[in-house]
Amino acid sequence: MTDLSAPPFSSRHIGPSESEQQRMLEAVGFESVADLVAVAVPEAIRAKDRLRLPAAIGEAEAIAELRALAGRNRVLTSMIGLGYHDTVTPAVIRRNLLENPGWYTAYTPYQPEISQGRLEALLNFQTVVSDLTGLPVAGASLLDEGTAAAEAMTLAHRAGRSKSDVFVVDADALPQTKAVLATRAEPLGIRLVEHSLDGDLPECFGLLVQYPGASGRLRDFRAVAAAAHEAGALVVAAADLLALTLVAAPGELGADIAIGSSQRFGVPFGYGGPHAAFMSVREGLQRQLPGRLVGVSVDADGDPAYRLALQTREQHIRREKATSNICTAQVLLAVIASMYAVYHGPDGLRRIAHRVHRHATALAEGLRGAGVEVVHGEFFDTVLARVPGRAAEVVAAAVERGVNLWQVDADHVSVACDEKTGAAEVAKVWAAFGVIGGGEVDAGNAPDALPGTLRRESAYLTHPVFHSHRSETAMLRYLRKLQDKDIALDRSMIPLGSCTMKLNATTEMEPITWPEFAAIHPYAPADQAEGYRDLIGTLESWLAEVTGYDAVSIQPNAGSQGEFAGLLAIRAYHRANGDEGRDVCLIPSSAHGTNAASAVMAGMRVVVVACDDDGNVDLADLDAKIDKHRAALAAIMVTYPSTHGVYEESITEVCAKVHEAGGQVYVDGANLNALVGLARPGDFGADVSHLNLHKTFCIPHGGGGPGVGPVAVRGHLAAYLPGHPLHDDAPVGPVSAAPYGSAGILPISWAYVRMMGAEGLKAATEQAILSANYLARRLSPHYPVLYTGRGGLVAHECIVDLRQITKETGVTVDDVAKRLIDYGFHAPTMSFPVAGTLMIEPTESEDLTELDRFVDAMVAIRGEIAKVASGAYDKDDNPLRNAPHTAESVSADEWPHPYARGEAAYPLPSLRDGKYWVPVRRIDQAYGDRNLVCSCPPLEAYED
Amino acid sequence: MTDLSAPPFSSRHIGPSESEQQRMLEAVGFESVADLVAVAVPEAIRAKDRLRLPAAIGEAEAIAELRALAGRNRVLTSMIGLGYHDTVTPAVIRRNLLENPGWYTAYTPYQPEISQGRLEALLNFQTVVSDLTGLPVAGASLLDEGTAAAEAMTLAHRAGRSKSDVFVVDADALPQTKAVLATRAEPLGIRLVEHSLDGDLPECFGLLVQYPGASGRLRDFRAVAAAAHEAGALVVAAADLLALTLVAAPGELGADIAIGSSQRFGVPFGYGGPHAAFMSVREGLQRQLPGRLVGVSVDADGDPAYRLALQTREQHIRREKATSNICTAQVLLAVIASMYAVYHGPDGLRRIAHRVHRHATALAEGLRGAGVEVVHGEFFDTVLARVPGRAAEVVAAAVERGVNLWQVDADHVSVACDEKTGAAEVAKVWAAFGVIGGGEVDAGNAPDALPGTLRRESAYLTHPVFHSHRSETAMLRYLRKLQDKDIALDRSMIPLGSCTMKLNATTEMEPITWPEFAAIHPYAPADQAEGYRDLIGTLESWLAEVTGYDAVSIQPNAGSQGEFAGLLAIRAYHRANGDEGRDVCLIPSSAHGTNAASAVMAGMRVVVVACDDDGNVDLADLDAKIDKHRAALAAIMVTYPSTHGVYEESITEVCAKVHEAGGQVYVDGANLNALVGLARPGDFGADVSHLNLHKTFCIPHGGGGPGVGPVAVRGHLAAYLPGHPLHDDAPVGPVSAAPYGSAGILPISWAYVRMMGAEGLKAATEQAILSANYLARRLSPHYPVLYTGRGGLVAHECIVDLRQITKETGVTVDDVAKRLIDYGFHAPTMSFPVAGTLMIEPTESEDLTELDRFVDAMVAIRGEIAKVASGAYDKDDNPLRNAPHTAESVSADEWPHPYARGEAAYPLPSLRDGKYWVPVRRIDQAYGDRNLVCSCPPLEAYED
Repeated sequence: MTDLSAPPFSSRHIGPSESEQQRMLEAVGFESVADLVAVAVPEAIRAKDRLRLPAAIGEAEAIAELRALAGRNRVLTSMIGLGYHDTVTPAVIRRNLLENPGWYTAYTPYQPEISQGRLEALLNFQTVVSDLTGLPVAGASLLDEGTAAAEAMTLAHRAGRSKSDVFVVDADALPQTKAVLATRAEPLGIRLVEHSLDGDLPECFGLLVQYPGASGRLRDFRAVAAAAHEAGALVVAAADLLALTLVAAPGELGADIAIGSSQRFGVPFGYGGPHAAFMSVREGLQRQLPGRLVGVSVDADGDPAYRLALQTREQHIRREKATSNICTAQVLLAVIASMYAVYHGPDGLRRIAHRVHRHATALAEGLRGAGVEVVHGEFFDTVLARVPGRAAEVVAAAVERGVNLWQVDADHVSVACDEKTGAAEVAKVWAAFGVIGGGEVDAGNAPDALPGTLRRESAYLTHPVFHSHRSETAMLRYLRKLQDKDIALDRSMIPLGSCTMKLNATTEMEPITWPEFAAIHPYAPADQAEGYRDLIGTLESWLAEVTGYDAVSIQPNAGSQGEFAGLLAIRAYHRANGDEGRDVCLIPSSAHGTNAASAVMAGMRVVVVACDDDGNVDLADLDAKIDKHRAALAAIMVTYPSTHGVYEESITEVCAKVHEAGGQVYVDGANLNALVGLARPGDFGADVSHLNLHKTFCIPHGGGGPGVGPVAVRGHLAAYLPGHPLHDDAPVGPVSAAPYGSAGILPISWAYVRMMGAEGLKAATEQAILSANYLARRLSPHYPVLYTGRGGLVAHECIVDLRQITKETGVTVDDVAKRLIDYGFHAPTMSFPVAGTLMIEPTESEDLTELDRFVDAMVAIRGEIAKVASGAYDKDDNPLRNAPHTAESVSADEWPHPYARGEAAYPLPSLRDGKYWVPVRRIDQAYGDRNLVCSCPPLEAYED
Repeated sequence: MTDLSAPPFSSRHIGPSESEQQRMLEAVGFESVADLVAVAVPEAIRAKDRLRLPAAIGEAEAIAELRALAGRNRVLTSMIGLGYHDTVTPAVIRRNLLENPGWYTAYTPYQPEISQGRLEALLNFQTVVSDLTGLPVAGASLLDEGTAAAEAMTLAHRAGRSKSDVFVVDADALPQTKAVLATRAEPLGIRLVEHSLDGDLPECFGLLVQYPGASGRLRDFRAVAAAAHEAGALVVAAADLLALTLVAAPGELGADIAIGSSQRFGVPFGYGGPHAAFMSVREGLQRQLPGRLVGVSVDADGDPAYRLALQTREQHIRREKATSNICTAQVLLAVIASMYAVYHGPDGLRRIAHRVHRHATALAEGLRGAGVEVVHGEFFDTVLARVPGRAAEVVAAAVERGVNLWQVDADHVSVACDEKTGAAEVAKVWAAFGVIGGGEVDAGNAPDALPGTLRRESAYLTHPVFHSHRSETAMLRYLRKLQDKDIALDRSMIPLGSCTMKLNATTEMEPITWPEFAAIHPYAPADQAEGYRDLIGTLESWLAEVTGYDAVSIQPNAGSQGEFAGLLAIRAYHRANGDEGRDVCLIPSSAHGTNAASAVMAGMRVVVVACDDDGNVDLADLDAKIDKHRAALAAIMVTYPSTHGVYEESITEVCAKVHEAGGQVYVDGANLNALVGLARPGDFGADVSHLNLHKTFCIPHGGGGPGVGPVAVRGHLAAYLPGHPLHDDAPVGPVSAAPYGSAGILPISWAYVRMMGAEGLKAATEQAILSANYLARRLSPHYPVLYTGRGGLVAHECIVDLRQITKETGVTVDDVAKRLIDYGFHAPTMSFPVAGTLMIEPTESEDLTELDRFVDAMVAIRGEIAKVASGAYDKDDNPLRNAPHTAESVSADEWPHPYARGEAAYPLPSLRDGKYWVPVRRIDQAYGDRNLVCSCPPLEAYED
């Protein structure tokens, strides 16, 4: 009998062919992958059984199943509002950005020289936010409006003058914002007080005003802001970017901080996300900004260049002193929002806002004319109608007409107009209210409902970038030009240790822009989202199976949020057991800084456990720390395999010791790509983990977000997974604004698991381990490889140590990283977890040709280093120190360097075909921090 | 009342904003566009009325209407076969090639230096065809299998030794192939004889064997080929590429020529097209190949480089001596097919073929086992079943199960298996036949049904390119690498005179890859294609309205075919009137060579009419030629505006004169972009035109195809539009294989007209005229502008004359064209219609910034020419003569030129941001023709 089956998807996902795999095994010294794994992965943790997952299916079959799921979602016109508004994604942006791997497979712009395209786009985003909010410094996006509000609250807490522990929340704030604030406030000892903001304010360190309010009400908050300032409190405005094109900027009204969502700038609903939230602050608060901030600096030739500014603020540097655990931004979504502004320009945005507003006022007029009470006289896009006892009936009548409204309570319905609202939608709403003849009110004639004191007078988006891409052709070329500046996975391997830059397969990506997944409001009735619910439930169950846990929540929309949610579950569990005093979190010294930051946010005290010379947890010190904190021990957080890329033999022992002392074990899932199908944290002793779907489960990095960070727990913690105010009461509140977090991109991971099946997932892990060991073996004659486990093997990544080389030659990791750009590669992870090293993770998706090309580059660079050592290259003026080399520099009329141009540009002959040309030379980080510029610089800046 | 409407789509399609338009008008010296048009366009032809088209709608609304149309197509499993087979387009290829403007907006690779990416892809295509057919030289694709068969027939006619006028067609050939052959044979005096090929052959100059036959029958045609050769006839095999992975190559069986379709290599049905046909020939026939042929040559540095070979064969050079009128290939589709082969490799293709075959044999076994007679014992994928009197019933039963079969006649049903066929489909077919228990026959166990003498022994696709892109990551990067080598509209303006390289808007493009448009077999029952029928009918009526004609057929899948169809209509009309003797076609000397070639194909004699110094038809000579040929006068073919880009004042007079003499007037619609909304050929005197939807109506050029060339006629010619054997009998046969030609891309033009409306279309034309005149005005101080009409104005393009410059300085049009590459531009049309000139057509889609950037480049180049003239630049060693400059050349360690590197690389400062780097230097055309290599060269060729 002949096997007629098509090759499985895994043969496309996994880079090396069988024959390549065989050659790699020979190089590493094993006969089979099974032999390798038997040595590399400790017996004690190895899973005995195959994962119980449905058999793998092909790409066409997966698309068919996803189409069936999509068909069970119903796309209605959603006029629900509450922070999510329908919007038109311009097709040119959807196709050439959201559906383009040149954009979506890029990594976070830590290597700014190869990230100038997306950094420029993010700078545009910051300019949009800064201009519209009237506050000078804006960050490069946050996860969602709810968490942005929480970040603003904690910023106000540390930056304000008040000693109060009260944070006042506008009673008219979005329900999910209130809930996320509550989740975040409690562990930090912040007391939330809800207040109408109409009378006197209680004493507080800060307050949040929703502008416009959830009910649609638009009010001038100058007076309340002034009062707050007088009392030493900071004012946070949660604002709507589109409204701000017509009404006064928060900064002009006295806000110190503005936050909000940029979703309605062209980003689809996606059943709740991902969307980019924003934050901007007044002068003086910029060093307190959480998350990423793009700034302008100069390169080695003195030309302007972009890079991430003020990075020392960030959690990976500050650890338990961090003020936030945010590591991911929502870059892809922020870039879409920025391009929406670039494409429409200020006039176009104003026109859209005007149209939205006028349809809202027409709607209100029609209702009033028919005797329906409209609660607020002043609003932007949302009309709150009072219909005593009839709210449910009106909402149901609207659904019958294909429109979702929002039932506030038994007597009130709110209706939010958006970019897509036209006369037809308004008429349907009137009909749902039983209004006849509203049709005589025309939006073009409707009166204005903006308060006179709030008319926007100040200009915005005056920079030329917002005025020169008005035709589709111009927009298309701008997108292409920026894309071409960057290295993403569509050009070459991105060997970033701990980041798992694997294939984001097209079949996984295609469904996310189908309308049936993209156009569902997060608060749409459940019967309109059956496909989503099914997909989410299934994915959660698969992730539980893969990790060996009992329950999973996909709500956290970043690894950091998953981590926080996991720690909240532990905290809630101890409290439910009466163990309020358990607040110590043990964290090995090798841990990622985010672990400590999350622990602090969850109200825990961080106690560091030492590591031995191999980076493993020092068991003696662990014993000592457990003894010292036994009664207060809440948890230990470990990463497995370790941040050093090693399978620690002692993991089961570590788990047992902590459990024995009454603590819970948190295993950070960052390195899950080394475990899937081989070992399950839930089996080898952990109680909770977060996963990174944007690492192991193929959601693309998007240039620095979106991420998804599900939290997985054993049964005793299941009750403490994140809840949501729109669902049933839960002991723990939401950690993200939307009930299902970034639901819109979950089809990616669903498709990956569906197409790989148990065998494919295991094979991928095995190949990832083999590839890392192949690289380690091939590089080790040239560079010392740090940290190996049994048999001298690494897990799924390896660390090459440059410290001795630096000492002897002056050539730094930075030099090697930047020189790799000249060879067409993104650098490996630099100086994490150990300063002076490079951590390399090939993933399973790179084929042998690409791995060898990388090795060739590293070996050639080692040869260059040797020339520096021997004196053949000048110590300060050599291709390493001067890297990267732009085309402009190597073709300059004057060539001032002692090495040849060809050595700079084409150190390997293969580079002559299709070389990537970096757009700027090495960027001066310090200059940019000293001269902070975080919005689009004037064109003259480029003229020298 | 405020206007709240969104800006129309036309404001995105048309490049210049209102204020830019005003500045352009000032430069040209007019107050308004209306004033400009009033002077530029002759009063006599100007339309008085607005086009009667539905009001323009926005992009979102157009997508909604297209979704509704798509929803009226029903996607069933089509096992109809007959030259069209279902296939899986790999998602990575669909997204990154078919849906990627970097590929689809490219132009025909006449400028090879900026086309190396698609030329490499086409060379891969030629290698696939050559390897699989076993014939050494393959072209870069033809329009469809039917026209490829016709081209092969005429090739055999002129190349064979036989004096016979008979061409024998396999009785088992595809029905559409027979019909297209008949259409093409008759005007040329070729007699078609259908023959079973089983007994003795009649005397003939050639024969066509279908391999495998339409009925599925697979036979060894060695003997018939030998007999034909003995009689001096050439043998054409119409072959199936997938079958050829398992059975002996046509070249091995004695075929001189192989043709066929590459559709099933990953290209969707599209209700009939576009698909790439192929042709390969034995040694000695390569100079007879119609269409394009990619070959390998060397560049100025001696490095291998690709370009179109043997171009002197082509119709635009040979005019009435041309042997074919083919100008367009199906590049985008050929590239998809080639990438399908690259992705699967020979093993993957063989595996797919094997699976297809085994499902067919299992199907046959199951039928036989249940007593259904299977007609042929030897077949590849198609099973012919004999079900006396039951055929209709079986087909209907299959449709009920979601499967389309083919009813051959009342007693026979044929079933074609394809890449998507699995056990489920086979079971449905069995059920439709009423077979119970066929399920026990498993494809894995099914016997083979390939004739023993036909087993494929020879290797194919041995080149490394077919072995090194097996992972999705590798495939993605290969596509990106090739794309990056080329200039397409996503990088910069392509100012090609007469080619109308305008925006191909994303919203227009998106629907073509929706399954409801992509997955419909051309012979699917009409009730499964209601959406298509509606869209086609509507588009035809809109095109009739735009052109002022009474009837339109969208069947011709290239302008050349539209031209041929138009001339056939004229021919048939005269014959119907008893005017068999009317066979003279007048063609002005300025005409595109294709006009003459088409006339000859339509059985006409070409008589050239002189042009005056301004390129206008010489009326005196016209009178003389009419007088001389009055009785025999069939038609005149003119282009309007003229090929010189001028609105000839005399057009109405020309029409009247020809009509008066009993002739018909053919207006070539190549320049329709200068007329839409302003004038209608059907109104000003023409009887027939063909249009180019890939010019005026936004179908992208795809790197050199697909094109669509509808033919539009006045009422008296309507009966003579192309028919199709699957429809009712028509006096004129089909000119394309599929009933609706390249139906799959018609949604593009539909969307364009729907979103522009009458006002938008007119505004686009006006802007195109303004932009051309703006360029003419800005360039005229630097270069003489040839040919202007009233007021010194041009139409939608302008010609700059370099002849005097060349005479004085030695700098040629070639030098200027290649130097423009260094400035980041695709060259204008070179030396057409006048040698030594450049014809520039900006189209309406370029904004003022881009137009000015082009002017800056042309002015800077003029400055460089002046330096040559003054001696400041060496006559032979200057930036013009050495253009284009690669990055490698300007960064070489040695710089041997007397001008500076910076002058070579960055002649304008703006080039420093995002410069396009050409991958090769100037290509030696002659070398490649002398050393013809038309398949992938061995890797060693690149090693020097």
